[in-house]
Amino acid sequence: MVSHTDPDYSAAYVIIETDAEDGLKGYGITFTLGKGTEVVVCAVNALAHHVLNKDLRDIVGDFRGFYRQLTSDGQLRWIGPEKGVVHLATAAVLNAVWDLWAKQEGKPLWKLLVDMDPRTLVSCIDFRYLTDVLTEEDACEILQKGQVGKKEREEHMLTRGYPAYTTSCAWLGYSDDTLKQLCKEALRDGWTRFKVKVGADVQDDMRRCRLIRDMIGPEKTLMMDANQRWDVPEAVEWMSKLAEFKPLWIEEPTSPDDILGHAAISKCHNRVIFKQLLQANALQFLQIDSCRLGSVNENLSVLLMAKKFEIPVCPHAGGVGLCELVQHLIIFDYICVSASLENRMCEYVDHLHEHFKYPVRIRQASYMPPMDAGYSTEMKEESVKKHQYPDGEVWKKLLAAQKN
Amino acid sequence: MVSHTDPDYSAAYVIIETDAEDGLKGYGITFTLGKGTEVVVCAVNALAHHVLNKDLRDIVGDFRGFYRQLTSDGQLRWIGPEKGVVHLATAAVLNAVWDLWAKQEGKPLWKLLVDMDPRTLVSCIDFRYLTDVLTEEDACEILQKGQVGKKEREEHMLTRGYPAYTTSCAWLGYSDDTLKQLCKEALRDGWTRFKVKVGADVQDDMRRCRLIRDMIGPEKTLMMDANQRWDVPEAVEWMSKLAEFKPLWIEEPTSPDDILGHAAISKCHNRVIFKQLLQANALQFLQIDSCRLGSVNENLSVLLMAKKFEIPVCPHAGGVGLCELVQHLIIFDYICVSASLENRMCEYVDHLHEHFKYPVRIRQASYMPPMDAGYSTEMKEESVKKHQYPDGEVWKKLLAAQKN
Repeated sequence: MVSHTDPDYSAAYVIIETDAEDGLKGYGITFTLGKGTEVVVCAVNALAHHVLNKDLRDIVGDFRGFYRQLTSDGQLRWIGPEKGVVHLATAAVLNAVWDLWAKQEGKPLWKLLVDMDPRTLVSCIDFRYLTDVLTEEDACEILQKGQVGKKEREEHMLTRGYPAYTTSCAWLGYSDDTLKQLCKEALRDGWTRFKVKVGADVQDDMRRCRLIRDMIGPEKTLMMDANQRWDVPEAVEWMSKLAEFKPLWIEEPTSPDDILGHAAISKCHNRVIFKQLLQANALQFLQIDSCRLGSVNENLSVLLMAKKFEIPVCPHAGGVGLCELVQHLIIFDYICVSASLENRMCEYVDHLHEHFKYPVRIRQASYMPPMDAGYSTEMKEESVKKHQYPDGEVWKKLLAAQKN
Repeated sequence: MVSHTDPDYSAAYVIIETDAEDGLKGYGITFTLGKGTEVVVCAVNALAHHVLNKDLRDIVGDFRGFYRQLTSDGQLRWIGPEKGVVHLATAAVLNAVWDLWAKQEGKPLWKLLVDMDPRTLVSCIDFRYLTDVLTEEDACEILQKGQVGKKEREEHMLTRGYPAYTTSCAWLGYSDDTLKQLCKEALRDGWTRFKVKVGADVQDDMRRCRLIRDMIGPEKTLMMDANQRWDVPEAVEWMSKLAEFKPLWIEEPTSPDDILGHAAISKCHNRVIFKQLLQANALQFLQIDSCRLGSVNENLSVLLMAKKFEIPVCPHAGGVGLCELVQHLIIFDYICVSASLENRMCEYVDHLHEHFKYPVRIRQASYMPPMDAGYSTEMKEESVKKHQYPDGEVWKKLLAAQKN
């Protein structure tokens, strides 16, 4: 029962160009674990006609309508709706639109959101299937309340940043020596929150968790991630054995579709699944994802529902560029929605940032707010050129090696 | 809030050839509402390596393992798992494998299942994420009990067939005259159960439901289908207005992901969603789907869970070839699992059967068991040739017309 045994990240990368004189482009990304990106790209092409020859003002002027157009395309809806391949493609397209919008406004995305008045923010959200839990009026009220103390919280972010935790120390398959070395380095760099991957072998998990807990001491925070490896009874048994290492949460214990089987924290594929997890009191923490959900639009609705239920949001990150994206959302969440840092932190994984034009800046284990205009989704030109399928240098070598 | 406004069915059609001397081929199908099939085909290609150069005996000899391979492909799992595009592609591939297997055994699929011993049947099912509700032992026990009276039930199917209901009379957009005419013809042909599409306009729905109820009288059965048009509060209000026409069920009132919001009957995308609907007592009827779920394998697990919760299964049909496929599953269900026809019926839609080599046979509003070997998935060669994208005659004309 292994989930992601051989990931080799690749990404669908959407570029939106316009005929405006500013020459700005919007960049959108969603990644996969390797194979499958070609399927996502195919879906992006199927959605493209919704964007081609449209005016950006018209799109963002009726963003809810545009979101609905993409997610409820009369024919494509069948192969979703709002899940799997089409929803990943939707995220990539919408991420590009948000990037372009923020650039046109000359602001980083988080600041665009922070400065937006509540009515406009709410007009970006599709409340379909949510109104039994969150109406447009609820959303406005939450955002209105969030105006109080906003300026101070923005200042706090700019000076201190948003607290992060690291997943880079304890992947499955690392030797004990590697684990120890990485933990030591992370402690030296000021990290106080650590996540460990579990679920392949309970004895091995116990040994690794003990090792890490010994390294970091009893006061620091430890989280565990099982990547959907267990059935419900198995999860209960396994976790009872790992409880002695005092994990703050256990992530993805079982199928992401199993609302009723969930116990703690989950990456979900759309706002309807999140809604029920909240209704069912099945979550103690909530993870958002900028590449899996329908971009900023859908994440806004999840942030607002989390606030309504007073559940802390702790974004999932990693992959390709996910750290770059989610930092915008969680900084906005603190400034305008949750107004709290209690029990909150954003995942950090130390890889692939070198390909991005505006990589994350971590200082004292915190995300420092990005200051460049846009959604930080733009990649370096030379990285794109090198990794483009099938003509990039990296692919040419790989494909040639396969032939031999 | 319209769901499927402009469907124009198309299908991904998988053909598996082998080097066996029998020259048999397996045919698998999954359809979409038009656009999107190219994305499904792309996903089928991404899955193809699991089937290429494999021996059919090895595949069906460890069918659970093969199912797991397809649905938990280390990299492709990310773009599902078990939902949307990849799951539709999985269904098409597995449908082809089952068709080939049944043909090699010289039996229609339902008969292959009926004659299979419980242990072998159960070895086709992946119980992952189900064991809190259905274990392998539970499944065997249910199937063992189903052996009693099996012969008589098979005989009953062969002489009387499986009861069907028709959706062909009352699509949205039909004029009142068309409605009346189609109802009249259906009554004359012996139909006693009717489904009407609702959800676009409540006044119009009331008028149409009244018209149909008047035509068929108070004793016959009326069902309603809202195609996911409503939010939960809206569904409650709308249905209270349609209650006077005494619908047996209301189908897909809201988002297919909304377990807790469901009230009656739902098309779901995998067995984990079905499991929770059963656990939450959110279903009074259960619909299976041969093109959306992971073929026979996953449908078997849903049939067994439905039996455990004593919920009648009423398959959804229509689309392209879905009637041809689901009839096998529901006939097997009656003979070996549910052993009951109470409150049970299978949808029938009268279209596109002319493209199939072994079309369904309806007699006195019942599905007569298919007698040809296989899963009835094979299409007529001339139909495939004519409708193949982009070189078929039909497409050539369409594409030429678009250019002008």
